[in-house]
Amino acid sequence: MQADRGVPDAVSDVFNSDCPGRTVLDHVTSRWGLLILASLREGPQRFYELRDRIGGISEKMLSQNLRILGRDGLIAREVEPALPPKVSYRLTPMGAELAVPLQSLLDWVASRTRDIVAAQRDHDGQA
Amino acid sequence: MQADRGVPDAVSDVFNSDCPGRTVLDHVTSRWGLLILASLREGPQRFYELRDRIGGISEKMLSQNLRILGRDGLIAREVEPALPPKVSYRLTPMGAELAVPLQSLLDWVASRTRDIVAAQRDHDGQA
Repeated sequence: MQADRGVPDAVSDVFNSDCPGRTVLDHVTSRWGLLILASLREGPQRFYELRDRIGGISEKMLSQNLRILGRDGLIAREVEPALPPKVSYRLTPMGAELAVPLQSLLDWVASRTRDIVAAQRDHDGQA
Repeated sequence: MQADRGVPDAVSDVFNSDCPGRTVLDHVTSRWGLLILASLREGPQRFYELRDRIGGISEKMLSQNLRILGRDGLIAREVEPALPPKVSYRLTPMGAELAVPLQSLLDWVASRTRDIVAAQRDHDGQA
C-alpha cells in the first residue's frame, strides 16, 4: 500500500506514532504553529503584532509556540539593539520552505469554507 | 498587512477566531483528520485498514474523525451489500482536492524531519 510513496524510514514516517516525523507534523500543523508560520510569511513581526494578527491566541500560547518553532529551526528571534531592545521573529530558510505548502493549505481552506459549511448544513438537515 | 492576500471575508478568514474557516482549518489539520485524509488518497479503505495504517489512533478517535470529515463533505461512507455489509470510506471530490496540499505538507515534513531533529539537538545543546 505504500509502494507509491517510497518506503518511509524510522525517522520520517508520519504514519508511525513512534517516529520523530509525527512530532514535527504535530508542531507544524498545530493551530497556532500553522498560523504563526503563515503570518511570518508576510515578513518579520514583533510579538504584539503576531498576537494581534492571530485572533484568539493568548500571549502564553504565542510564547510557547514561538519557542517550539524556534527549537525546530523554523523561525528565528532577532534582537535589534535599541532602547528598549526590539525583538522580532522571522522565518528561517527552512521555515520559508515549509510556509509554501502551508499557504496552499490555507488558501484551499479559505476558498472552500463556504462549500464545507454548506455540506455541514446538508448533513445536519438529513440527520 | 493583508494587502497581498486580498481581503478575507467573514466566512473564510482563518486568522479570525470567529470565522467558520478557523473551524474547518482545525478539522483538516487535526493530527488524525490529516492522516485519515492522506491515507484515503491511496484509495478507499475500510475502518480496520485505516486503524492499522495510522499508528496510535484509537477506534474512538477514528470513528469521531470519520464523522467530522463526513459532515464536512470531505469523505464519504460506502456500504456494499454483502453479508456482513462491507463499509468503506473514500475521499469525495472536494476531499481529493484538499489531499493535494496536505500531501505536499506531509512530503515536506518527511523530507525535512532529519534537519528539524538536528536543529532541536543544536538548540538543546546551546541551552
